[in-house]
Amino acid sequence: MKIVVLKFGGTSVGTISKIKKVAKIIRDYKKKNYSVIVVSSAMSGVTNELIKKSQEISKNFSPSEYDALISSGEQISCSLLAGRLIDEGYMSRSWLAWQIPIFTIGSFKNSRINKINKIKILKYLKKGGIPIITGFQGINDQQRITTIGRGGSDASAIMLSKFFNAIRCIIYTDVEGVYTTDPNKLKKAKKIKVISYEEMLEMASLGAKVMQPVSIQDARLNRIDIEVKSSFVKRSGTLITKRSNISDNKIVTGISSTLNDAKVTLVGVKDRPGVAASIFKPLSKNLINVDMVVQNISANGKDTDLTFTIKSDDLRKTRKIIKDNKSIKFKKLLLEKEVSKVSIIGVGMITTPGVSFRMFQALAKKKINIKVISTSEIKISVLVDKRNTKKALATLHKEFKLEN
Amino acid sequence: MKIVVLKFGGTSVGTISKIKKVAKIIRDYKKKNYSVIVVSSAMSGVTNELIKKSQEISKNFSPSEYDALISSGEQISCSLLAGRLIDEGYMSRSWLAWQIPIFTIGSFKNSRINKINKIKILKYLKKGGIPIITGFQGINDQQRITTIGRGGSDASAIMLSKFFNAIRCIIYTDVEGVYTTDPNKLKKAKKIKVISYEEMLEMASLGAKVMQPVSIQDARLNRIDIEVKSSFVKRSGTLITKRSNISDNKIVTGISSTLNDAKVTLVGVKDRPGVAASIFKPLSKNLINVDMVVQNISANGKDTDLTFTIKSDDLRKTRKIIKDNKSIKFKKLLLEKEVSKVSIIGVGMITTPGVSFRMFQALAKKKINIKVISTSEIKISVLVDKRNTKKALATLHKEFKLEN
Repeated sequence: MKIVVLKFGGTSVGTISKIKKVAKIIRDYKKKNYSVIVVSSAMSGVTNELIKKSQEISKNFSPSEYDALISSGEQISCSLLAGRLIDEGYMSRSWLAWQIPIFTIGSFKNSRINKINKIKILKYLKKGGIPIITGFQGINDQQRITTIGRGGSDASAIMLSKFFNAIRCIIYTDVEGVYTTDPNKLKKAKKIKVISYEEMLEMASLGAKVMQPVSIQDARLNRIDIEVKSSFVKRSGTLITKRSNISDNKIVTGISSTLNDAKVTLVGVKDRPGVAASIFKPLSKNLINVDMVVQNISANGKDTDLTFTIKSDDLRKTRKIIKDNKSIKFKKLLLEKEVSKVSIIGVGMITTPGVSFRMFQALAKKKINIKVISTSEIKISVLVDKRNTKKALATLHKEFKLEN
Repeated sequence: MKIVVLKFGGTSVGTISKIKKVAKIIRDYKKKNYSVIVVSSAMSGVTNELIKKSQEISKNFSPSEYDALISSGEQISCSLLAGRLIDEGYMSRSWLAWQIPIFTIGSFKNSRINKINKIKILKYLKKGGIPIITGFQGINDQQRITTIGRGGSDASAIMLSKFFNAIRCIIYTDVEGVYTTDPNKLKKAKKIKVISYEEMLEMASLGAKVMQPVSIQDARLNRIDIEVKSSFVKRSGTLITKRSNISDNKIVTGISSTLNDAKVTLVGVKDRPGVAASIFKPLSKNLINVDMVVQNISANGKDTDLTFTIKSDDLRKTRKIIKDNKSIKFKKLLLEKEVSKVSIIGVGMITTPGVSFRMFQALAKKKINIKVISTSEIKISVLVDKRNTKKALATLHKEFKLEN
């Protein structure tokens, strides 16, 4: 059996006419003699409406009942989709997570798939059936419905691909794939044909919203090829696979940028162990997420400057925490509310020297000032004025030949 | 354990604020040291919306997927209600039919409860928990979700009462109970305090919409006392019980009337075997429901007059069928479009002679002409002109002292 797993997101099954289109996509795979396993999210809007109801009932709605409540969303979309395929003469049925079952571990609202019983679904596939499986959910060892906190239905699709040895996992969504950069910010952005898990992870964590990092990581660990494509436009999407499957690695695969970042610099901090911790501990306690952190080696061996970025919304709170906490010693506090992190990502840069130099030079030529630099194995990030974001994106997109 | 089963209909859980009120009703029973089993319908409107979606997907939507689809409605209401009780500090949880399980037999969309596994719920009740059980559904031996065709959540409540030996089954709905006659037609209608299953069956089949006949019949067969009451007004409702529990049987307990009936009379039909069948077979084939049927003994031993009633909407179709069907022989066809069936119901009439005489005389005094008469053990029905319906109801209501 050549098994493919097709996952449809909430917007893909958002209306009755969209569900009919999805049925057509499924039929096309079936006609090509694939054994098709379908995973569906809830119709877009349904889950939010249920969450709203729960909040009206209780400000602190029980997590176990929350899972029982919102899991109904996928039950609705899956039975409608199966009903459509049956209407068209196909053998299909909805499979609710408990009917398979799909077992999860962890807590309510935040569980993860641990085991999938393959027997019934394999038998059903062998008979030629098209199972439509509820994404985003499972049952725990108490037979209670659980939902998958992060990754949602994508995570369901990836784990199903793993357990059933699918030759491919296709994530149908409302975008055509992964782009070299956000097409809303740069018109010249191109769809990436193939990208490694690692690059995709960096893209995702830096703001490309196609898939959640946790799902990409699951796919990477289980070596599952993922294709991200549109359920509305019939074009090839983006293949996410392991590095060794990619022949022509570009130096840079994609460029991402963040918005609404703020920069905080503490000038003249004592350069001794435990100082950074004394600053970040109260921030973490207050759920303030610290992103880039840069600390220079102190010239005099006593003082140092510490810079980090946070979300702009957290700036006022952060300022108060630092000012109020007497154990944090520094000479001066510098705040910049509107900065943007621009990052180039590519596995090619591991083997190509001088990439950072090219990046810095290209930005300098356009008079874009770099405030902070941070690098990882396959990524270089710089902090620039927010007003320079688009210019920086365009400059780097051209410099690294992503427009071709 | 003193177990009570509380069932809440769709209007009772129709909004978030109504669900909060329902939680209060449940708490009151819990405080009186009852072990409470709750059964809930879907929030009013939800089921219809889901059915509409299924019809948009397919004109002939798969029955098995239909059941998977609409059963989500009770999942939503039950988890919301359980969430509310938890919020208020009670031990509660939603129990979906498959988690118990509640087993059904029969076909999809029209199954009935066959067996309920008591172990988990009993354990939960002993710990002090309040189970909120999804009405209207179960699973079949293939572990697929099924819905209960007739009776719906009422049937679930009655079967749960049976399996758990509940001391009472209370049906919370949007009316205060069962009335001597429809309060919309006669202001003087009174709430009936206690009524026998048999009378209730007649009332239900004659148009009183409080409960479906099949549920009343289930309760009768299993000797389960049902109380019907309002979830909005804190007053005692109507107790439906066995005859021997009722001490002061009135002669007549209630009066019902139908609207939109039509009368068909075939004059001069051959009085020989098979004639009635030859008339009713084509009607039944065309899904025309025949209600009262009266045939007089023929005077000459050859011809007879056959009268029956149907819904007014079916009159045109019926006329055509009779005219077109050459095997139906008669001399004359008389049609009356607007008639009404008025029935008095009461177990007391079994032991009281002269009830029908009193009925006919009372109507005659008011110059109300009786067109057709039909009687059963505990019911006398007459057909009158539609315009006389209200007058007939008022006359009989007074005659049989239902206003006291």
